[in-house]
Amino acid sequence: MTKIYKNAGAISGHEIHEECGVFGIYAREKKPLAKLVYYGLTALQHRGQEACGIAVNEDRIIRYHKDIGLVHEVFTPEQLTALGCGQIAVGHCRYSTSGSQARENAQPMVVRHVKGQLALCHNGNLVNSFELRRELELKGCIFQTTSDTEVISYIIIQNRLKYGSIEDAVCAAMGQLDGAFSMIMMSPAKLLACRDPYGLRPLCCGMLEDGSYVFSSETCALDTVGARYIRDLEPGELVVADKNGIRSIRTHCDRKPKKLCVFEYIYFARSDSIIEGCPVHEARRRAGRFLAREYPADADVVIGVPDSGLDSAIGYSEESGIPYGIGLIKNKYIGRTFIAPDQETREKMVQLKLNAVRSTVEGKRVVMIDDSIVRGTTSARIVNLIRQAGASEVHVRISAPPFLNPCYYGTDVDSKENLIACRLTIPEICKLIGADSLGYLSVENARHLTGADPDSFCCACFDGKYPTAVPTHTDKDRFEVIK
Amino acid sequence: MTKIYKNAGAISGHEIHEECGVFGIYAREKKPLAKLVYYGLTALQHRGQEACGIAVNEDRIIRYHKDIGLVHEVFTPEQLTALGCGQIAVGHCRYSTSGSQARENAQPMVVRHVKGQLALCHNGNLVNSFELRRELELKGCIFQTTSDTEVISYIIIQNRLKYGSIEDAVCAAMGQLDGAFSMIMMSPAKLLACRDPYGLRPLCCGMLEDGSYVFSSETCALDTVGARYIRDLEPGELVVADKNGIRSIRTHCDRKPKKLCVFEYIYFARSDSIIEGCPVHEARRRAGRFLAREYPADADVVIGVPDSGLDSAIGYSEESGIPYGIGLIKNKYIGRTFIAPDQETREKMVQLKLNAVRSTVEGKRVVMIDDSIVRGTTSARIVNLIRQAGASEVHVRISAPPFLNPCYYGTDVDSKENLIACRLTIPEICKLIGADSLGYLSVENARHLTGADPDSFCCACFDGKYPTAVPTHTDKDRFEVIK
Amino acid sequence: MTKIYKNAGAISGHEIHEECGVFGIYAREKKPLAKLVYYGLTALQHRGQEACGIAVNEDRIIRYHKDIGLVHEVFTPEQLTALGCGQIAVGHCRYSTSGSQARENAQPMVVRHVKGQLALCHNGNLVNSFELRRELELKGCIFQTTSDTEVISYIIIQNRLKYGSIEDAVCAAMGQLDGAFSMIMMSPAKLLACRDPYGLRPLCCGMLEDGSYVFSSETCALDTVGARYIRDLEPGELVVADKNGIRSIRTHCDRKPKKLCVFEYIYFARSDSIIEGCPVHEARRRAGRFLAREYPADADVVIGVPDSGLDSAIGYSEESGIPYGIGLIKNKYIGRTFIAPDQETREKMVQLKLNAVRSTVEGKRVVMIDDSIVRGTTSARIVNLIRQAGASEVHVRISAPPFLNPCYYGTDVDSKENLIACRLTIPEICKLIGADSLGYLSVENARHLTGADPDSFCCACFDGKYPTAVPTHTDKDRFEVIK
Amino acid sequence: MTKIYKNAGAISGHEIHEECGVFGIYAREKKPLAKLVYYGLTALQHRGQEACGIAVNEDRIIRYHKDIGLVHEVFTPEQLTALGCGQIAVGHCRYSTSGSQARENAQPMVVRHVKGQLALCHNGNLVNSFELRRELELKGCIFQTTSDTEVISYIIIQNRLKYGSIEDAVCAAMGQLDGAFSMIMMSPAKLLACRDPYGLRPLCCGMLEDGSYVFSSETCALDTVGARYIRDLEPGELVVADKNGIRSIRTHCDRKPKKLCVFEYIYFARSDSIIEGCPVHEARRRAGRFLAREYPADADVVIGVPDSGLDSAIGYSEESGIPYGIGLIKNKYIGRTFIAPDQETREKMVQLKLNAVRSTVEGKRVVMIDDSIVRGTTSARIVNLIRQAGASEVHVRISAPPFLNPCYYGTDVDSKENLIACRLTIPEICKLIGADSLGYLSVENARHLTGADPDSFCCACFDGKYPTAVPTHTDKDRFEVIK
Repeated sequence: MTKIYKNAGAISGHEIHEECGVFGIYAREKKPLAKLVYYGLTALQHRGQEACGIAVNEDRIIRYHKDIGLVHEVFTPEQLTALGCGQIAVGHCRYSTSGSQARENAQPMVVRHVKGQLALCHNGNLVNSFELRRELELKGCIFQTTSDTEVISYIIIQNRLKYGSIEDAVCAAMGQLDGAFSMIMMSPAKLLACRDPYGLRPLCCGMLEDGSYVFSSETCALDTVGARYIRDLEPGELVVADKNGIRSIRTHCDRKPKKLCVFEYIYFARSDSIIEGCPVHEARRRAGRFLAREYPADADVVIGVPDSGLDSAIGYSEESGIPYGIGLIKNKYIGRTFIAPDQETREKMVQLKLNAVRSTVEGKRVVMIDDSIVRGTTSARIVNLIRQAGASEVHVRISAPPFLNPCYYGTDVDSKENLIACRLTIPEICKLIGADSLGYLSVENARHLTGADPDSFCCACFDGKYPTAVPTHTDKDRFEVIK
Repeated sequence: MTKIYKNAGAISGHEIHEECGVFGIYAREKKPLAKLVYYGLTALQHRGQEACGIAVNEDRIIRYHKDIGLVHEVFTPEQLTALGCGQIAVGHCRYSTSGSQARENAQPMVVRHVKGQLALCHNGNLVNSFELRRELELKGCIFQTTSDTEVISYIIIQNRLKYGSIEDAVCAAMGQLDGAFSMIMMSPAKLLACRDPYGLRPLCCGMLEDGSYVFSSETCALDTVGARYIRDLEPGELVVADKNGIRSIRTHCDRKPKKLCVFEYIYFARSDSIIEGCPVHEARRRAGRFLAREYPADADVVIGVPDSGLDSAIGYSEESGIPYGIGLIKNKYIGRTFIAPDQETREKMVQLKLNAVRSTVEGKRVVMIDDSIVRGTTSARIVNLIRQAGASEVHVRISAPPFLNPCYYGTDVDSKENLIACRLTIPEICKLIGADSLGYLSVENARHLTGADPDSFCCACFDGKYPTAVPTHTDKDRFEVIK
Repeated sequence: MTKIYKNAGAISGHEIHEECGVFGIYAREKKPLAKLVYYGLTALQHRGQEACGIAVNEDRIIRYHKDIGLVHEVFTPEQLTALGCGQIAVGHCRYSTSGSQARENAQPMVVRHVKGQLALCHNGNLVNSFELRRELELKGCIFQTTSDTEVISYIIIQNRLKYGSIEDAVCAAMGQLDGAFSMIMMSPAKLLACRDPYGLRPLCCGMLEDGSYVFSSETCALDTVGARYIRDLEPGELVVADKNGIRSIRTHCDRKPKKLCVFEYIYFARSDSIIEGCPVHEARRRAGRFLAREYPADADVVIGVPDSGLDSAIGYSEESGIPYGIGLIKNKYIGRTFIAPDQETREKMVQLKLNAVRSTVEGKRVVMIDDSIVRGTTSARIVNLIRQAGASEVHVRISAPPFLNPCYYGTDVDSKENLIACRLTIPEICKLIGADSLGYLSVENARHLTGADPDSFCCACFDGKYPTAVPTHTDKDRFEVIK
Repeated sequence: MTKIYKNAGAISGHEIHEECGVFGIYAREKKPLAKLVYYGLTALQHRGQEACGIAVNEDRIIRYHKDIGLVHEVFTPEQLTALGCGQIAVGHCRYSTSGSQARENAQPMVVRHVKGQLALCHNGNLVNSFELRRELELKGCIFQTTSDTEVISYIIIQNRLKYGSIEDAVCAAMGQLDGAFSMIMMSPAKLLACRDPYGLRPLCCGMLEDGSYVFSSETCALDTVGARYIRDLEPGELVVADKNGIRSIRTHCDRKPKKLCVFEYIYFARSDSIIEGCPVHEARRRAGRFLAREYPADADVVIGVPDSGLDSAIGYSEESGIPYGIGLIKNKYIGRTFIAPDQETREKMVQLKLNAVRSTVEGKRVVMIDDSIVRGTTSARIVNLIRQAGASEVHVRISAPPFLNPCYYGTDVDSKENLIACRLTIPEICKLIGADSLGYLSVENARHLTGADPDSFCCACFDGKYPTAVPTHTDKDRFEVIK
């Protein structure tokens, strides 16, 4: 059967996915906000390419549109016009792990409740969603999606009945939810943004020239819409924008140690974003420098696997003195509906997504920097490409430590059986991928990529030190995975 | 602005819409049920043309697909294959009155709850949904659609927690819901079909050659899939099909007087369907015969406005002895995306959807039978067409009484201000539409169309005698109508 | 494999197809002509449902859009707007017999040549296209389509080099082309319409209120756009509309005996159209009357197979005194992308497209009128439907003579091996379709349907008397039929 | 009005477009060639993103599919399967300059003629197409497209009548055509590839493991399908692959001085391609080195504008010793249907397509390498971006000489009035784009990018030395540009 690679990245690109990007604007005055959110989401598209949506609040009425596809596929000019103007708006892009009912899981989740409407955009994953969902079900709640976000909506709305305001409801919810959640919510009159007490996922705030507040997963979307960066939200903080301006609520949550996902720096975020004061590009370059010290190589050229390996390659080059080169070219035109070759043909067509630049690597001893090795097959193919283009040696350096543990916080770093580093030793992996040498960034250095407190990062996928309880049940236990 | 008539019927066709068709199969053995439901829904498409969906239960896992569009637009071969085989399946087609969020309101509604999944297809409208929804909201329930069906899902699922089985839960719900509901539901192991205690909407049952049970809004869908008609469900009856066979539950509901919507016979149903023993075609022919007696005309030919006026015209011809003729031709190719002319042009292009057959009407005194007059503009246009084609007189006969009251049971017979018969006398309407004479079927005779007990019909839109309480709040009060 | 019935008519409807409808307007003043043509083509859609196109001439520049699909599928509001306003416009709808490269064969054919542009719409089929094409090829002409229309374009344009005007070029071409051609053409400054010397295909002319000239295959499209019918073009006539008004050229062609396709009356044309003075509905009714005389039946009810059988059924009823009834209902919602059942399932789902009205036929001796029997399978299915609905006898009457010969003039009446009447006697066919009796209209009476000279019709598919030479080579010999 | 950027590159990317990529395979044995061409075209997609097509020859029958869109948009698995297997296949991707009738201009052009079919794919532009077309028109030829390719088809086919073989016909045509043409053609039995006598556009040849011959505009497509590079075609060479193997014909053309478009190295080609022995990446790096010598800068970091500026930036860095940095990030998710901001908003949203990496440029004196300046607005925006990100100085270096003359050979380097370098001096341009200094590569050095004979390049857009006559008439004179 002919197979369409819904996620073309799989052909020979990266295999780890962030699940979401969130974006929100509080403008106060009616403006064509749908379009602004559209541009914001386009800048966050790397965080989720399977579905997206925008909700606009015009005079307390929330309209929305969401569907499967990239931002520019889901929204036509007609649809943006239909969503039109409003005082508040939120948007979401998503990489869905769940398959066939993906459309239902698209966000924003927009619900009606006793006090009006609520639109909710969530980046992250809860570790107690099984228990929360079970509890809600026992109260007679029904679920139309398989996403945590519906659980969160219930929790907030049920709090809303007990408390006098949506912010009190969200504050209370933040104590009930465990796991990763950077959220942007819109009530009839307010925009709310919050970050879980560990700060596992990033979330920042900016301001447009006209005084509108903007919230975004990453600063690159602030840049895109022309907003000035103000600051990152703090872990456990709730920021509320309403007609009285903006205010921060920080007293409601138990103070937890900050645990920002270090893989945001290594891979997820766009390299022009700045997270908690540290430019992502800088962190990646530093990873390259660390690698050069940890795993020096006697080589002629340093190349990076596009896109995130490029930054680290520069760092490696700087530290080692080995010249930086452009050794791999990525085909930009492999879209969502690209028809992948069958297994047999694929072997012969390794260069479909990546091709080696022969003049860079021919006759050279090459250091190749990539950000991860998941199952090893992709890495093996790339190494082979470089050898076929004439490299005499290929030394692979990975700008992250080996994946040894699944992630429960909203990325799809997989179960142990799929992680090559759980099954093989580093020399074995080196052999498998056909490299002359292989070095991974140490966890220790991964904690020092940004200059911040080394304990303020979640490195659980590398070292197994989960900041939260580990979920006893996962979604896969509950929901049949439907292909 | 160029306007696309999403409901092309509006151009010069009928202006009253049924809201839904429901269909379900319990096959016990795994079969390609999605396709069977597809054919069943195609036969019920006249009951709802805006959205449709199919859910298939394979080994207790429910998969579904639903979207805006006709059945043949929403389902591709790939999607049918993806839904594939199963033991139980349900389907729904819908005419949505609510506008922009129509996709969310598409059915089947598929929910997860503490005991598994439930897929629900509903034809009808509740009169106490405002109160039920309010009550649920006060318990912290959230709503993702604006349809009654979500309310019903909650009621059933909350009952499910109290009672030992899904059938007990549905039985209890049938006592809580007030209004019209013919429903087909699918739990992990059962197919359930029920009809409200008044029997406002039709629902029948049949059997395939292989012993599979089929439920459908109308018998025409049984014919289509090759099922043998067994019987109509009784008002207040719940039929359950599971591995133990089929059984009927009738004891749980207060016995209410039967009140089948008489407009099902007059307009909604397909004329090859048989409802509660009476062929729809026969009822319409009888309406024509009654009209001939109530409003005879000195005329040369009787013609019908396609499609439902044709049956009545034959009856009128039979009773009056005036020859039947084909006087109007309908363009079959005006689809959902047809671009309607602007107001000015429309006047000149009356024949876009209907055209007169000159040789039938030229120089003749014509009796023209239609099934309703809503705002009068369409009727005026058709009368004018016939005159332009040379008719010397046009006597309009309506195979239904005048609409004087809104319908709360799942059709869109509108508010009083939009119903011409509330504002004008019959002579005034006659003048407005340019007819030489005008006669409506009497309510008395409308009650005698089928031979059944004349009190067993709901004629509320004609006589205001609502079988249920009249809702104090309507959806329009609650949900902003978003254009 | 799942099969989509591209032409859903095939499921259980008619199997004979006309190939084209043509439409043109000369407005002189700039107007939104694309939309007018859109409405005109919608009225002619029954003549061709596989592809369509519109070309608009604005200030001597011709823009066009054409594609596969129904008129309302091919044209979006954006595309109509893009074509926009102009002084002259033409349109075409087509039933394509050729398959995969159907898009290329869509019309209007728009070509550039030494004197500017020419847009050409053609209904009919040449019998000497093989020879003409060959001759052109030998001069170095290249062909991008497989349609006659490209041949005609070459002939006209090559004449254009020799003669001083486009009308002279067309006049000369009319002498070179042999076969059926009703054409509407648009040069930078003129609209031209012509009919072949036999008048095999219809073509008429009308006028809008503002004085614009309209040409159309049938009068129903004149009605639709609000044009007053002026007259049918005469066989061999060329009408030219330009800034000097309208003028007719008749002297250029050898006078041939008129041979209008009688099947236009029997089946192709819409029953509200009037061709050469005779209403199509009237001709069909007359066919019914003739049948009642030729093949009377002792029966209780006369029914027609929708759509064109209905008119004849009324005639049969009138003549025989047997009451007319509605015995078959057609599902209107089976669109182009309808997924047809596989062979096995189809047997069980005969009612997919047509269903019997039980109350009309149950316990009755039924006369069923249809317009043709091609392969017999469809007829057998319909007869069976009526029996299953309880008819005690089914007497089939066909409002046309048996097909015994292929048509070379633009319909797809097939080769002899596919025509049942070539292989079986009438009693054999009667048995095959399961009828109690079977009667075909006599060729003699077919020639008397309209009151015009009985020799003025082409009945070649019935009697083999081709007005032209029979082509020695057909397209099928030349062009690989690609599935 | 909301505007969709059909060519999203325009937002802030490059403004020069190549018009085509060509690809062909001669497999001899029947294979699923459509898919191979699909992969080949995906690798050539950068050469043309507006339309594409594939033609497959199975047993001498040519089937094709072409449409507007990217390769992965135009071809579904169903369509590839329909084209299926064959012995020979060709494909084309195109950047269309002509607008609304773009679908007609899509290639391959497939024509039927006296000897069978011919499929033709063309990269380049003729300078004598006006004259050739005129001549053909005067012979009565008609044109259905506005592309040169149709002219070429006629020329070849008319030669075909005179000569005994398709290769003789093509040889003769190569003498009649003047301008740029790298072509791949498919006759019923042969694959033919040729390059114009100047070799203005590239074309190379390779071989699959199974012995199939592959022709492609660039070697990157050979890599992609796993073909081994054999050699580039020589200027004026015709290569024919048929059942007798492959053979080269070189004697038929007047030997012209080789004039390969130098801008292929500078911008058009993918940097992993190798043209006439010189890796494109290498040529670009060399451009950077030349720039460093011609226009040194006292700076802290060298950055490139993605994508083609990156290679040159590395060269500049190498030569100057100034460190290379990643200073700009390109948003990969701006697809064809991206909705561009209106003029006013765009000013505020400069970072929509490109964003500066603050940590690379902040506080630094930056050398920024781009490949061209067309109108200056894009360059001004990028310079501004870098300044806003904190750069203290921005020194712009262009890896090409200034555009001073239009290109007549298949790119859209525009008319003089649109080329900024024709209107402004370099200091004026420097000021306009807001740079601290500006340096263009000298024409002299542009001729030395590859190490080949400096006279073997066409630099006409820079120095006005056209290898051919300059066309007196352009397509724009003939064909109304329809928006």
